[in-house]
Amino acid sequence: MTTHFNNLSTDWVLQDNERSLKLFREGVVDNVLSTMFLYFGDDDMTRAAAYLCGIMTHTGIPFERVDSTQSPSDTLLQKPCDAFILSDYPRERFQSGQLETIVSAVKNGAGLAMFGGWESYYGLLGEYHETILAEVLPVTMLKADDRRNFSQGVLLSPVQTHPILDNLPWETPPFVGGLNEFSIKPEAKVLLNGLPLSIRKNDGRFDFSLDTKTYPMLVVGEYGKGRTVTLATDVAPHWVGGFVDWGTERITQNLPNGGFVEIGNDYATFFAQLLRWVGKKTA
Amino acid sequence: MTTHFNNLSTDWVLQDNERSLKLFREGVVDNVLSTMFLYFGDDDMTRAAAYLCGIMTHTGIPFERVDSTQSPSDTLLQKPCDAFILSDYPRERFQSGQLETIVSAVKNGAGLAMFGGWESYYGLLGEYHETILAEVLPVTMLKADDRRNFSQGVLLSPVQTHPILDNLPWETPPFVGGLNEFSIKPEAKVLLNGLPLSIRKNDGRFDFSLDTKTYPMLVVGEYGKGRTVTLATDVAPHWVGGFVDWGTERITQNLPNGGFVEIGNDYATFFAQLLRWVGKKTA
Repeated sequence: MTTHFNNLSTDWVLQDNERSLKLFREGVVDNVLSTMFLYFGDDDMTRAAAYLCGIMTHTGIPFERVDSTQSPSDTLLQKPCDAFILSDYPRERFQSGQLETIVSAVKNGAGLAMFGGWESYYGLLGEYHETILAEVLPVTMLKADDRRNFSQGVLLSPVQTHPILDNLPWETPPFVGGLNEFSIKPEAKVLLNGLPLSIRKNDGRFDFSLDTKTYPMLVVGEYGKGRTVTLATDVAPHWVGGFVDWGTERITQNLPNGGFVEIGNDYATFFAQLLRWVGKKTA
Repeated sequence: MTTHFNNLSTDWVLQDNERSLKLFREGVVDNVLSTMFLYFGDDDMTRAAAYLCGIMTHTGIPFERVDSTQSPSDTLLQKPCDAFILSDYPRERFQSGQLETIVSAVKNGAGLAMFGGWESYYGLLGEYHETILAEVLPVTMLKADDRRNFSQGVLLSPVQTHPILDNLPWETPPFVGGLNEFSIKPEAKVLLNGLPLSIRKNDGRFDFSLDTKTYPMLVVGEYGKGRTVTLATDVAPHWVGGFVDWGTERITQNLPNGGFVEIGNDYATFFAQLLRWVGKKTA
């Protein structure tokens, strides 16, 4: 099994984002483990992975990434890191004992975030519901295809205040196009609910309503000394929907491979705050 | 310059879709030029191109494709074909005289469809607004960045009846996430308008309204004996939004590269009807 990391070196990020890295460090100086994230998932950096790579680069978070076609090396998993990000990463890529290594790091204070997608939670083929992550994540995964698509969109709606949700215009919420369905564990906190929109045209006018069924969209918890985050939707198209363009300003972030990503500033702020939060130990 | 076609042979399509090909042929028997489409654009068949490849395969439309990184050969352009599809295909890939060859075929009865994207119309870098297609398409392209993103979505709303719009549940319309803006030529017909949604949360409840500014989304016209279609949004994520999941049934279409695409049945019907329509000569 080959191990592949993208050629984005930590040095490159440090050099390119000195100012934002400084801000990041100032925010986490008390309880940071190191200044490195391990990002598993999405495909190459010109596609789905461009979004999270762009945000981490823009926010000044150094990271290493293992793309969805590759398995991590045991050496990589033993590096100290602030948080593990799993985003559309097939469960079968993890070799025996590797998820246990991650869980052990989380117990000792590393954060763990899972973002939605066809290869997350249960997903298309059955992924994480029978792994040790079922114990660690703040949600209970379904035991069947949990993918839900919405041709009329799902609004993101805050349930309580939280540092991940700060400084964002929730009075004009974005929509997403799909999600993985799961239920919340008793000790977890739901931060965002997903409210499916129903739009019907009657006699030339549109009637708008919200479905009575809602979906937990962003849930946070703790496991040992580590923080956990589960996001039901995808960080990238197509499920991300209009969320990726949320904000009145556009951010264009160059990537080291010569590509770039163009996103809304509120989308970038949301994920930057999420990553900063999950990268800290519990108090 | 290398010319590359995907390895989807016409024979393969014929064999795999005998029944739907028969239906397709029955529908176009009077005024079909041949039974081949030339599809320019999108990236490899596991990504953006999977959608249109999936629909054409499912509908039984034989096609050859030139992906967005490649230029067509002159030989390919001289094959008789029912219609040219340009979907997110960089203008600069066309060599000198090639767009003129396409236009000449359209004048003689081949259809021409352009679908939206960062490499369509004006797009990100300036694409087709100064080419001969400005004369042929039924819309007037902007002379500046025409990309429009909507974090709260844009509803698709029919303006008049048309074979492309038949048999679809427009009373429960899907949303898209973005589009290229253009204006309509006097002789063209707008079939679909895009209505941007405004959602605002006030005192815990959501107020829904539609913006007064609307966008032409689907426009049809004629050029010589050829039919022309312009779609403002993308056939693929991210602009396609929830449109790709429109329909109560899911269609999973295997692709010859071993991949597959999963889409809503109403989305598939829309594009199948569009392709059938544009593949016919004008009366």
